[in-house]
Amino acid sequence: MIKSNLRNFPSAQKRREFLEQELDIKLDKISGFNFPEEQVLGRNIENLIGSTQLPLGVAGPLLIRPGGVKAHLRGVLRYIPLATTEGALVASVSRGCKAIAESGGAEVFVEEVGITRGPVFKVKNLKGGLETKKWIDDHFPDIAKITEQTSNHLTLKKIGCRLVGRNLFARFYYDCQEAMGMNMVTIATQQAIELIEKQTKAKCISVAGNFDIDKNSAWLNFISGRGKRVWAEVILPKSAVKEVLKTTPQKLAEIVYRKCLLGSIMSGSLGFNAHFANIVAAIFAATGQDLAHTVEGSLGITTAEVLDNGNLHFSVYLPSLVAGTIGGGTSLPTQQEALKLMKVNGVLEYAAVTSTAVLAGELSLLASEAEGSLAKAHQQLGRNQKLKVKSKEVF
Amino acid sequence: MIKSNLRNFPSAQKRREFLEQELDIKLDKISGFNFPEEQVLGRNIENLIGSTQLPLGVAGPLLIRPGGVKAHLRGVLRYIPLATTEGALVASVSRGCKAIAESGGAEVFVEEVGITRGPVFKVKNLKGGLETKKWIDDHFPDIAKITEQTSNHLTLKKIGCRLVGRNLFARFYYDCQEAMGMNMVTIATQQAIELIEKQTKAKCISVAGNFDIDKNSAWLNFISGRGKRVWAEVILPKSAVKEVLKTTPQKLAEIVYRKCLLGSIMSGSLGFNAHFANIVAAIFAATGQDLAHTVEGSLGITTAEVLDNGNLHFSVYLPSLVAGTIGGGTSLPTQQEALKLMKVNGVLEYAAVTSTAVLAGELSLLASEAEGSLAKAHQQLGRNQKLKVKSKEVF
Amino acid sequence: MIKSNLRNFPSAQKRREFLEQELDIKLDKISGFNFPEEQVLGRNIENLIGSTQLPLGVAGPLLIRPGGVKAHLRGVLRYIPLATTEGALVASVSRGCKAIAESGGAEVFVEEVGITRGPVFKVKNLKGGLETKKWIDDHFPDIAKITEQTSNHLTLKKIGCRLVGRNLFARFYYDCQEAMGMNMVTIATQQAIELIEKQTKAKCISVAGNFDIDKNSAWLNFISGRGKRVWAEVILPKSAVKEVLKTTPQKLAEIVYRKCLLGSIMSGSLGFNAHFANIVAAIFAATGQDLAHTVEGSLGITTAEVLDNGNLHFSVYLPSLVAGTIGGGTSLPTQQEALKLMKVNGVLEYAAVTSTAVLAGELSLLASEAEGSLAKAHQQLGRNQKLKVKSKEVF
Amino acid sequence: MIKSNLRNFPSAQKRREFLEQELDIKLDKISGFNFPEEQVLGRNIENLIGSTQLPLGVAGPLLIRPGGVKAHLRGVLRYIPLATTEGALVASVSRGCKAIAESGGAEVFVEEVGITRGPVFKVKNLKGGLETKKWIDDHFPDIAKITEQTSNHLTLKKIGCRLVGRNLFARFYYDCQEAMGMNMVTIATQQAIELIEKQTKAKCISVAGNFDIDKNSAWLNFISGRGKRVWAEVILPKSAVKEVLKTTPQKLAEIVYRKCLLGSIMSGSLGFNAHFANIVAAIFAATGQDLAHTVEGSLGITTAEVLDNGNLHFSVYLPSLVAGTIGGGTSLPTQQEALKLMKVNGVLEYAAVTSTAVLAGELSLLASEAEGSLAKAHQQLGRNQKLKVKSKEVF
Repeated sequence: MIKSNLRNFPSAQKRREFLEQELDIKLDKISGFNFPEEQVLGRNIENLIGSTQLPLGVAGPLLIRPGGVKAHLRGVLRYIPLATTEGALVASVSRGCKAIAESGGAEVFVEEVGITRGPVFKVKNLKGGLETKKWIDDHFPDIAKITEQTSNHLTLKKIGCRLVGRNLFARFYYDCQEAMGMNMVTIATQQAIELIEKQTKAKCISVAGNFDIDKNSAWLNFISGRGKRVWAEVILPKSAVKEVLKTTPQKLAEIVYRKCLLGSIMSGSLGFNAHFANIVAAIFAATGQDLAHTVEGSLGITTAEVLDNGNLHFSVYLPSLVAGTIGGGTSLPTQQEALKLMKVNGVLEYAAVTSTAVLAGELSLLASEAEGSLAKAHQQLGRNQKLKVKSKEVF
Repeated sequence: MIKSNLRNFPSAQKRREFLEQELDIKLDKISGFNFPEEQVLGRNIENLIGSTQLPLGVAGPLLIRPGGVKAHLRGVLRYIPLATTEGALVASVSRGCKAIAESGGAEVFVEEVGITRGPVFKVKNLKGGLETKKWIDDHFPDIAKITEQTSNHLTLKKIGCRLVGRNLFARFYYDCQEAMGMNMVTIATQQAIELIEKQTKAKCISVAGNFDIDKNSAWLNFISGRGKRVWAEVILPKSAVKEVLKTTPQKLAEIVYRKCLLGSIMSGSLGFNAHFANIVAAIFAATGQDLAHTVEGSLGITTAEVLDNGNLHFSVYLPSLVAGTIGGGTSLPTQQEALKLMKVNGVLEYAAVTSTAVLAGELSLLASEAEGSLAKAHQQLGRNQKLKVKSKEVF
Repeated sequence: MIKSNLRNFPSAQKRREFLEQELDIKLDKISGFNFPEEQVLGRNIENLIGSTQLPLGVAGPLLIRPGGVKAHLRGVLRYIPLATTEGALVASVSRGCKAIAESGGAEVFVEEVGITRGPVFKVKNLKGGLETKKWIDDHFPDIAKITEQTSNHLTLKKIGCRLVGRNLFARFYYDCQEAMGMNMVTIATQQAIELIEKQTKAKCISVAGNFDIDKNSAWLNFISGRGKRVWAEVILPKSAVKEVLKTTPQKLAEIVYRKCLLGSIMSGSLGFNAHFANIVAAIFAATGQDLAHTVEGSLGITTAEVLDNGNLHFSVYLPSLVAGTIGGGTSLPTQQEALKLMKVNGVLEYAAVTSTAVLAGELSLLASEAEGSLAKAHQQLGRNQKLKVKSKEVF
Repeated sequence: MIKSNLRNFPSAQKRREFLEQELDIKLDKISGFNFPEEQVLGRNIENLIGSTQLPLGVAGPLLIRPGGVKAHLRGVLRYIPLATTEGALVASVSRGCKAIAESGGAEVFVEEVGITRGPVFKVKNLKGGLETKKWIDDHFPDIAKITEQTSNHLTLKKIGCRLVGRNLFARFYYDCQEAMGMNMVTIATQQAIELIEKQTKAKCISVAGNFDIDKNSAWLNFISGRGKRVWAEVILPKSAVKEVLKTTPQKLAEIVYRKCLLGSIMSGSLGFNAHFANIVAAIFAATGQDLAHTVEGSLGITTAEVLDNGNLHFSVYLPSLVAGTIGGGTSLPTQQEALKLMKVNGVLEYAAVTSTAVLAGELSLLASEAEGSLAKAHQQLGRNQKLKVKSKEVF
């Protein structure tokens, strides 16, 4: 029935030509791309026909003060690349950066939790499951050894098991250095599985048993963490809140309380924030991350408290930021340039800067909403879209 | 302290030049883009410096049978544009498409739930909250009228209120025709808020009170829906499962049960699926959607049941797919071409094709995992990355 | 293998005698009960051997001001029967009642949401599911009629359907007047099911498909409500907080923020409160409710806000309080007396008084915790338990 | 305003007399109780006026095979005391026990997770929070020592910390031997808090910061466990399913899949079971447990799988069963007799028998629902209630 197989075409150009003819369309714009076809094929994509171009903007500079991360991160101004098609986002993050800078900078702390892979094993019965669990607990060094033979850049940190009925779930946590690591840990865990299957009566049903849990929102990732767990905070003087954000510490604290806490509670949410996902998605797109990890990046909490001196303590908590600075799409040309623009030295710094950008984005959007100016901003954008004229930016 | 303001530079080129000098980097690749600078500025982005290029592949063709959507969708073969940097994704969706085609096609149903905006009002006390709620309930036509005056392309469908303490949350559902609509509904809801504030004693704290709930994972979106609610299914003959997916109906049903149901339950997840987010993110990136809506798109359930005749009933359910075919990034050149490549006539068809692509992606990945070939595929990819040679595709 | 069948013994006494001999134990205390054996057998219990005696205390009086419930509830002092074995609970609720009374009384609002029964139907495919859903939507009057023929005390309010794969879930909401109604709605829904099965191709798998969802914690009950949805609030002058609760409005607001909101968020909870379940369980036990509905009663939110004048706004929200004043265990002798002691005229008043008692219990425990006196109270209780002496009460 | 203070009356009798006169009611039945007034006052209750009598039935015998618990539990028949007012519950659990016995018995495994107390500390900023966390991690032996000085029956097992904004949450896990232990661990944790406050700059806001999380449904308890984590299973031959449960393995597996898994998923539930709470509440009431811990006991999963030989693997998983066999209400006369009737040697056995009773209850109710006989049973009960005649039992 279906004769055409896009894989059989020798090049992106031939595939495009086929599709243009078959569908009577033009793919002129898609045809332009500046990465080598042979670099991406079989590594980043299949059935390549060209590229999608996302507008790339830069927010910042962002000032980060001494925190938990490496010393050289301290006090350096950072720029934040954001690939997005949603107007106002870059301007909004920039405004947040300005408020942070005028407050003396943000502090940020990153914990390497580890990237996880969570196979599910079928066992004969509860006894069989508990025996397999015990074998895993007793043989951690053996399992670690066999997994670590698959790569020089991977360390098995721990394994957490849970049993229900005839199902044993095992959550493997790995340190993959600068890589996001999902591919690496799949390969490593496969070795562990083969060992476990050989030594016990358990039979693996899937190397990925959703106890990872990858690219889904889940309390397990919120509670136990996944990838990096990051905290960022800033103490904003009243003046910075007033002059840059055009609102007051009281109003920011109130909107966080009523919206991010109570509103999210009333919605049964795992995100207690304004729009973590916006900033995470835009930085991830710009820097070659797996876009689906935006899901984990949306988890977390924004807090705001007015201090006794009237200043504002403002923070974000991201329990599950999954990213890398090598591998995946990070080596593609535009993505590589964006990473260099961030000036990050490794993935912990990457997580730190990303989360502080999230802090900036939360500050600015919440301030807009607190002042009722969000609708006005959108109205401005809407007018721009109709009139097709360039406007002054909206924040 | 910070003197440079990226907004003050007159063009993307000038901004790049500043950053290149300031940071001692090169932004050669980013500099290339084929959308008009004046088209995107103030509408899609601020502080533009260029573009991010994502590799674009095509999966398919995908065969959709008569279902709940418009008649002309039926029986037409569709191609699926996927912008991604994650190897194997396009091949995997393609394989799923093949299995669907060999099974006579998938059936898909789309329900327009409506895009939501959920302001939070501060009220004096419970009585004040209930009175405001009653006023809203009693004056729905007035509220609808005032919101609908903000756009010819917007209809207010319903409002759901919830009260807790001194907080009244109102969830406005709108039909925005072909647009995703978040900007439109912010403007419309702002009008409703002004009316409500005038007629009652409630005071709006935020036009977006996280009762929307936008770009966060939440049970409210899962249960009540947001954007489009979509179901897709396929009945796979044993032969198609065997020949295309290299596994059996029994194994697919088992992995869905142990991984997507039990594994997700054990993780406290709102996603009971393998990787909805992968396919949603890649199509969204290719077609100019808001990438952060990948979060809502990750919600949902995959089911698999072996029928009495040995065939496999396989389905996906996406309660909260948020997208549009006009507005946002959809009019950018490469995104516009990708939309045309999909041959969709409006957003309901777009949701239908996207969700059926999700169905294909679930089928193929779960089949790989059921056969233990996922690790092998990743190994192949890993080797490709090391050797930097083009490989034959992995599925 | 097992010869003894407790059902075959003619009386509680004979069963006790058998067990005493078989197990070499004494059941002297259990043997005492003051309800007629023939009243409870086959209605409240099987295999009766006697009774469990729970200590019954009384908290109050509780002052309720004009609110949403019937006029005669207003301004009347209420006493609250609490059957419990947990020391300090009655004293704590009493202290809360005192604080409420000194603040001029609490205000309470009750909404009849309806008791639910949620069957699951197996359907052939998505199309079959949507057709069945449409039939149900189109024939609501017919379904209502057939269900209402099963009882004069039951009204079908609405039905909400959800489809996933080959499963159609339908949530029936009923008004059962003064009864909790689970048995009634099971019978009524069974009639509806038979009609639906006859008119469509759907086949019911269970009259109770966990879309009710009964005696389990679930966001559906939190969001959509179940049984009664209740709000109660009190405005406490600083003086009442200080003199009765020995703390300050600021401290109470702070503990609610850090514990009930942030602490519950960090725990992935559906309860954003201190101990709703304690008060609900104790009143339910005293008044013949189904104890397992304590689960639904534990859901909800406590809020606290310091007002501009320094007073404290304090409230509770219970979205899912499931109870009745006739049927079940309510007609048993001690339970009936406890209901009369509450002086409630029907189930809405019962829900109102119960929830206001929850308000009192929250106030007092949170005040104790805010002042660090909880441990001291427990220490006192512990000493009492060791020394077996009567102490002065701890709050 | 309120002159009467129930605490000032010298006895239950005087309080009753006051209430009878004040409210013009009779409390004749409540007046009867067979526990010493001085035993319960100040330990189990305040403002005592008498007792609530719950009908007590016995289910069983229940056959438990060799499992993870102590050897002497193996192969012994157990009787299960159930205090309830809900007709059919005892009969239903009994029927489940019969099915288990005819299948050769159930297997049960208990893990002592530990009872938790989770204070919340206010810290100056993120750095302060991480420093306090580090101090706690580094001084676990000191903290353990000081907590264990408060009781000879308590061991501190571990502490898990989480930070968000200016809030540090610490979850203390204790082994309290045979006691449920909430009072003990409050006292012990208070000592730890005083040490931490002295050695760090953190300030405790509440000894119970809802990171325990006590008497609320929460994913933290589901994932990390609380009290005891218990698994029970039985392999039912087709014959036992048919003869005792009047259904088939296939139907039981199907109802568990469609109701307990999919139905609970569609409801956003933390309980993936039919009615854990019913059995837990009834045993807890009979044996002097804290009734509010029914909430934690409602969490968990029921699984059912048809084996290759046609038999049924059926299991329950309770991640968070909170109970004790000394302390609280366990020493009251009727409660003490019920505990002796269970013949349990310590709390692990208590948890084992309770969970196996839950297994029995799940089996029987699900079988009834699978056969459509639940409504008939309720109809029978309803008739009984109207006619006030003793019926033959319904299962």
